[in-house]
Amino acid sequence: MTGPAVDIIPARRGKAVALAKGQTIRVINTPGTQVLDTWAFNRGDLGESMSMEHSRSFNSKIMLGVGDSYVSERRRPMLTVVEDTSPGIHDTLLCACNRYIYEEQGCREYHRNCTDNLHEALAEMGLKIPFTPAPLNLFMNIPVNPDRSISRLPPVSRAGDHVRLKAAMDLVVVFSACPQDMSPINGAQKTPRDAHYAIES
Amino acid sequence: MTGPAVDIIPARRGKAVALAKGQTIRVINTPGTQVLDTWAFNRGDLGESMSMEHSRSFNSKIMLGVGDSYVSERRRPMLTVVEDTSPGIHDTLLCACNRYIYEEQGCREYHRNCTDNLHEALAEMGLKIPFTPAPLNLFMNIPVNPDRSISRLPPVSRAGDHVRLKAAMDLVVVFSACPQDMSPINGAQKTPRDAHYAIES
Repeated sequence: MTGPAVDIIPARRGKAVALAKGQTIRVINTPGTQVLDTWAFNRGDLGESMSMEHSRSFNSKIMLGVGDSYVSERRRPMLTVVEDTSPGIHDTLLCACNRYIYEEQGCREYHRNCTDNLHEALAEMGLKIPFTPAPLNLFMNIPVNPDRSISRLPPVSRAGDHVRLKAAMDLVVVFSACPQDMSPINGAQKTPRDAHYAIES
Repeated sequence: MTGPAVDIIPARRGKAVALAKGQTIRVINTPGTQVLDTWAFNRGDLGESMSMEHSRSFNSKIMLGVGDSYVSERRRPMLTVVEDTSPGIHDTLLCACNRYIYEEQGCREYHRNCTDNLHEALAEMGLKIPFTPAPLNLFMNIPVNPDRSISRLPPVSRAGDHVRLKAAMDLVVVFSACPQDMSPINGAQKTPRDAHYAIES
């Protein structure tokens, strides 16, 4: 028996995936160290998108776990966490990286970034949105300290850890294998690597 | 000598204000209990807006204080906190309330809400934006607990407390005196009240 096909989310690149209501996607942190910025849009109306600020409000927590649902700004569940083999550390607080952040960090040339990856991946599907929603940063390790500062630490997930997310409506889901190589959020080696996913019925 | 004119932000309503680069706005929590959802847009390009997810990233903290700047998604400072007579408790984590939240809470009729207040206030200036950015919730008391849950508590500000925000570029700033009257975020009496502001040169 073969399982569902496993596809690549190439290092530093975005990938848009159509997901039907009821389907589950397994998102695999192949190297263990790779952060995956993640967005979801109602496939029938791109004006409805997964919202981190509404998901925190809906669940009354800043980090969601198994059984919790990420919701849209219309408060409808979009993706429900059905399994997580990692320690469950994901981030809902930080923006997608963009060209301006890399300029801030001293880059003089264009640096690939999750914001452009989102829009490029949607464009490959012929889709366009007028802004960049705050992403779900799967596997990203951003603790909030008691003084309300945040730290940027390497992921605590292990090679091959996965999260399974179930679609509560027909969706376009976009992943970006975060290109950040100037801070340790993609591991102490600061090296973005390929991740993978599989759509399960 | 008279000070700058003080204007009203009516309870349950929104208010859009043009602010020139270098001007300071004093935002007054007249009753002490009123949460003010706050947005800012580049007056020359509404596509650039104050971003909570970028502001948390830029400042590496989830709650900003005096000397800190709220930035746009282009990482440019928009509003800098120059004074805060309140205990400094404000929220960057939660969404603006919208009609769907009040439906969730059991409302069967239309309930005024910060999201509609934002778009109404902009429309009064002839302006339109295609989405609702996450707001800065001035005076809103949403502690993050050690287990990463959040609580919704009454403001700790006192009657007349104010925040002074300095514009780092020409802005349209929008306030909404939050209409929430079903949870204690606008005080234990659950009663939205008028707040005020004054533009200082």
